[in-house]
Amino acid sequence: MQLFGGIESGGTKFVCLVGNSPDNLIREERFPTTTPHETIDRLIEFFWPYIKSGELSAVGIASFGPLDLNPSSPTYGYITTTPKPGWNKIDLYGEIQRKLQVPVAFDTDVNAAAFGEQYWISENRAMDPFIYVTVGTGIGVGVIVNGFPLHGLIHAEAGHFAIPHNWQRDPFPGVCPYHGDCLEGLASGSSMRKRWGQDPESLPDLHPGWDLESDYIALALVNLIYAYSPQRIILGGGVSQHPGLLQAVRWKVQQFMNGYVQSAMLMDRIDEYILPPALGNRSGGLGAIAMATELVLA
Amino acid sequence: MQLFGGIESGGTKFVCLVGNSPDNLIREERFPTTTPHETIDRLIEFFWPYIKSGELSAVGIASFGPLDLNPSSPTYGYITTTPKPGWNKIDLYGEIQRKLQVPVAFDTDVNAAAFGEQYWISENRAMDPFIYVTVGTGIGVGVIVNGFPLHGLIHAEAGHFAIPHNWQRDPFPGVCPYHGDCLEGLASGSSMRKRWGQDPESLPDLHPGWDLESDYIALALVNLIYAYSPQRIILGGGVSQHPGLLQAVRWKVQQFMNGYVQSAMLMDRIDEYILPPALGNRSGGLGAIAMATELVLA
Repeated sequence: MQLFGGIESGGTKFVCLVGNSPDNLIREERFPTTTPHETIDRLIEFFWPYIKSGELSAVGIASFGPLDLNPSSPTYGYITTTPKPGWNKIDLYGEIQRKLQVPVAFDTDVNAAAFGEQYWISENRAMDPFIYVTVGTGIGVGVIVNGFPLHGLIHAEAGHFAIPHNWQRDPFPGVCPYHGDCLEGLASGSSMRKRWGQDPESLPDLHPGWDLESDYIALALVNLIYAYSPQRIILGGGVSQHPGLLQAVRWKVQQFMNGYVQSAMLMDRIDEYILPPALGNRSGGLGAIAMATELVLA
Repeated sequence: MQLFGGIESGGTKFVCLVGNSPDNLIREERFPTTTPHETIDRLIEFFWPYIKSGELSAVGIASFGPLDLNPSSPTYGYITTTPKPGWNKIDLYGEIQRKLQVPVAFDTDVNAAAFGEQYWISENRAMDPFIYVTVGTGIGVGVIVNGFPLHGLIHAEAGHFAIPHNWQRDPFPGVCPYHGDCLEGLASGSSMRKRWGQDPESLPDLHPGWDLESDYIALALVNLIYAYSPQRIILGGGVSQHPGLLQAVRWKVQQFMNGYVQSAMLMDRIDEYILPPALGNRSGGLGAIAMATELVLA
């Protein structure tokens, strides 16, 4: 049986998958992100039996960033300027490729998640552009245009959008070390934790923080809609799973756009337009498997 | 000689071109946008001699919008919800195609301008994504990804980005009929005219309005950089031509990004990254000619 590996590398944990579709996952393991050396050793160990058996044809990596995705760059496949201690300028792609000796696909965690949600979910295949937004500890945006993850100078960094910040209503200065009150600075899980002094998961449903949070996420989606005119947006990540948040965001997107874009999808069918991830918390890992599959079969 | 027609349809004037490259324009005419009937008749008259001679192979239209760009829609090629009196739901593409009986390419004025700047300027060919921003009476953004103008649900509308608005510094509420203080509401030529009571062209160089204007434009470009990670941005339109504005915008983009995206292009070579249009005020019309050329020769 031909198998593919998926690696979702995050700042706090790595998720490794082996399989060849969402319905055929052979093995899954999650372990904490420690040092690069230790973490990479552990994932090599995880995949090794499938390398030995000759079943593992390729591996995909869905990584936290920023990443160097320019194939002609000498540091292609590196994690570049992350604040994560020890992970600055780490050749994640190269280390894994040299040790496993199979073709390796490499992209951001969010581009991979977008790719996975489009690749494995047939209703999403025709949706172009197609966007995956994650709101968790941080905020990230992955973009697929015409079937391919968007790369450019580097890759999308729309988590750092400059958005309106009403200081009277929200005097919190934001937590982004680069921009203070950018989108991630104001609306990430980290910002909620700092602003309210508790984890977002423990913030009560009627806490005003949720009204503020849905405002910021809706502003972010409005800007993404104006930028890309996407045909579908997937809203993932831990914070987005808070009960009622998705519905509030949909409603506020309509409010903020105020009928400017005359599209039935936005005006009447926004429940089909902004959706939770169909692959749950495996969008990134299954996206990595999809990337690996395409590398070999396309 | 094989010739192509270019039409740039704007809210105040139409520009019609015949030729086959920026260096070989046979004829150019500008006339005011009056009623659809009168204006379309006038442009048909302009192109007619080249239709009769058999030289005109195709025509491109670069139009103000919003437009229906979905080829499978019954209203493909229509101007949809413009506030311009008389131009709502006008079948611009269909009228021109039926009367000229040649292949017709159709896109937004800004997508066409982006396409033209990339198509005719060899240094721009490899720049992907490639973005054209116009700041004039209104604000528009055209986007080319992988050689093709970006279409989605409709097309980019990034002129309406939600951006930070410091009400203490700028108590002006904005002029956008849909959003008030969105980007176009705060930074278009119309907004400057209303805020300062005079045309932007007559606003003195040292007027504080220019400092505010370069702030807003820089915020818009920062958001575009985070959204698309473009390899080059062209900043066009009448307001952008104000002496010193481009340089101020470049500098503020660096300030606002604060080193977050580690790219030599942004950090050290921003003078090669944000550029004025190489085709001057003909980007749209020459883009329309490029679209027409591709329609026939590709």
